[in-house]
Amino acid sequence: MALIVQKYGGSSVKDPAHIKNVARRIVRTKRKKNKVVVVVSALGDTTDILLDLAEQITHDPSNREMDMLLSTGEQVSVSLLTMAIHELGERAVSFTGYQVGIVTDTSHTNARIVDVNTKKLSNALKKNSIVIVAGFQGKTIDEEITTLGRGGSDLTAVALAAALKAKRCEIYTDVDGVFTTDPRIEKQAQKIDTLSYEEMLELASLGAQIMQSRSIEVADKYNVPIYVCNSKNEKPGTLITREVKKMEKVLVRGIALNRNEAKITVFGVPDRPGIAATIFKILAERNINVDMIIQNKTVSNRTDISFTIMKSELRKALPIVKKAAHKVKAKNILIDENIAKLSVVGIGMRSHTGVAFKLFSALAEKKINIDMISTSEIKISCIIASKKARQAVQAIHKKFNLNKKNKD
Amino acid sequence: MALIVQKYGGSSVKDPAHIKNVARRIVRTKRKKNKVVVVVSALGDTTDILLDLAEQITHDPSNREMDMLLSTGEQVSVSLLTMAIHELGERAVSFTGYQVGIVTDTSHTNARIVDVNTKKLSNALKKNSIVIVAGFQGKTIDEEITTLGRGGSDLTAVALAAALKAKRCEIYTDVDGVFTTDPRIEKQAQKIDTLSYEEMLELASLGAQIMQSRSIEVADKYNVPIYVCNSKNEKPGTLITREVKKMEKVLVRGIALNRNEAKITVFGVPDRPGIAATIFKILAERNINVDMIIQNKTVSNRTDISFTIMKSELRKALPIVKKAAHKVKAKNILIDENIAKLSVVGIGMRSHTGVAFKLFSALAEKKINIDMISTSEIKISCIIASKKARQAVQAIHKKFNLNKKNKD
Repeated sequence: MALIVQKYGGSSVKDPAHIKNVARRIVRTKRKKNKVVVVVSALGDTTDILLDLAEQITHDPSNREMDMLLSTGEQVSVSLLTMAIHELGERAVSFTGYQVGIVTDTSHTNARIVDVNTKKLSNALKKNSIVIVAGFQGKTIDEEITTLGRGGSDLTAVALAAALKAKRCEIYTDVDGVFTTDPRIEKQAQKIDTLSYEEMLELASLGAQIMQSRSIEVADKYNVPIYVCNSKNEKPGTLITREVKKMEKVLVRGIALNRNEAKITVFGVPDRPGIAATIFKILAERNINVDMIIQNKTVSNRTDISFTIMKSELRKALPIVKKAAHKVKAKNILIDENIAKLSVVGIGMRSHTGVAFKLFSALAEKKINIDMISTSEIKISCIIASKKARQAVQAIHKKFNLNKKNKD
Repeated sequence: MALIVQKYGGSSVKDPAHIKNVARRIVRTKRKKNKVVVVVSALGDTTDILLDLAEQITHDPSNREMDMLLSTGEQVSVSLLTMAIHELGERAVSFTGYQVGIVTDTSHTNARIVDVNTKKLSNALKKNSIVIVAGFQGKTIDEEITTLGRGGSDLTAVALAAALKAKRCEIYTDVDGVFTTDPRIEKQAQKIDTLSYEEMLELASLGAQIMQSRSIEVADKYNVPIYVCNSKNEKPGTLITREVKKMEKVLVRGIALNRNEAKITVFGVPDRPGIAATIFKILAERNINVDMIIQNKTVSNRTDISFTIMKSELRKALPIVKKAAHKVKAKNILIDENIAKLSVVGIGMRSHTGVAFKLFSALAEKKINIDMISTSEIKISCIIASKKARQAVQAIHKKFNLNKKNKD
């Protein structure tokens, strides 16, 4: 008898009809002789409704009270889903994160799980019950209600799967799995059958947006296989697992595109040691995440520094960068919001050469200029003009033979 | 420094504007050098929305899951109200019934409080914080979420006031207090300044519907003064407290009218010992509450038995009564739904005579027939025709001089 953890997002339980559909899936899994633990998010737009109520009261809510407020969303889902399972004649019991023993630190609205006490859960499973757990939430050792921040329900699911040594953690969402690239950009994008945690991390953080990095990191750490699939159909999804030898045969697993970054260039910085440190230290102190950084010596004793940050942080970052630029006696600052970051990812790169060459050729053939390049062991990222992004993705997708079904 | 417990019902916190209004009241009480504990119900129609969601899933929900579902309503209120108080610059902290130590038995949806652990509450009060507690809910010793049934938030407030030895428990509602009778029936109805727990119990159970009997019984048991007033104005309300000598000066405190009962008469029952017991035993076994009972011998060896039950239980009761009537060889059954129960209440009756005479005279003067009569130490109830009820209340209200402001 295998133990399976399933997680259903808000769009999968947005109303009673959807909840009943999810209940049928769960019961089907149970009747295949599995023990089943289910993690659920808040119904559809519940969180937005609650946020709107809070906004009408205060523009600066206490994080503790926000957690108190928002954690009700998942509590509604778990009770309704449990009722729907009862209606199908199976045993089921719901728990809040508070009840089920998900212990977190005290960082309200963005807490980290520090412990998972599975006693209550195991007891319920022993009674042959399906267990429905509220995602996204936990409690501190002082019995304060906390929430886990963005992607928190995935994290709950992966953490429970790890603690219970589940066979698999199934993430139900509204897409069929992880694709070689965004199907809205390239119609020939193919669903990927299997990929490694590392590849998923690169694809997720680069904008695939199916799962948050935190959850994948935890899955990697505890070796929890993750299966991403669509709650609304029966198509096979994507298995994310530990790297296996045959994965390396594929050079490039997927192409991610991120249009949420902006590029800042600081021109004519005196070329002395410690100058870059000065600028990035100030940004770090203000919690502004810098992604790519390029330094390029132009004339004799001057250099240009370019870096990218999230567009959403631009307004906050700009005065800080200006101040820093002034401090290091830079000549000028340039902002470019019309950029896109395109990344090719694949663990095959480790053992194969020529990926960069192939990538640059594909772009050159389409006369697409590369603005910045950064590389890691399993990925190459380029910053290009935003308006060329779609064409670039299509060209690269074709170049790496991703248009044909990619058999792992 | 006095400790005051306040309770605000759902209509007082139905939207952000109302919540802000309540926050201002609370802060005002706090700034008069009081410690303040506040109990809140769910926002306006939240409970109905949740019940409707559940109804779309199942017609037979598990009580445990209903408690899980419904308890979210108050959790939303407490967090929003706490934010509103922060916005006014005062310290405040919210707790669920689960967190605050309201321990109940395991009767989901209608649990009884068995213990109140005030440690968390006292700690927060010591830090000079206003404490906002979710009404209507608690937890079992096994950490299951329970709710307290109808009027549960009042019960939470009274129980906390008792456990904390509060100076007063203030119940904020949408009426100005307890009236000598329903102002919709008698325009001259007067607000009562002070009444005893016992009188309130009779008035509440007879239809005044401001507070549930359970809460008043607990207040009586622990001698918690209750102050009922309107959350939307500043008018003085009604103080419900232990009987004091001067209360006895007033003969009749108020007149309650209840149109929710129906009368069943079983005709021609053999006049033998144990016959009434047979009928009422069967009703009790099926959990049908019988209110008034009258037995009247008509012809030699036969008798008629009349009794009243809630109209809402009529459909359930009827086949049972028919069966019982058949069993005791009764001749016939008659149902009358067009009745009203009118009660005059006052602890003054204990030491004064002539109340019954005055009451019957008032009705006789208006040619209103009395169908059944029952009396207790501090009340007299009559069943009359429903269509005469309004006229009867007005006549009695005048007869007992309640039209003039009743000075206690």
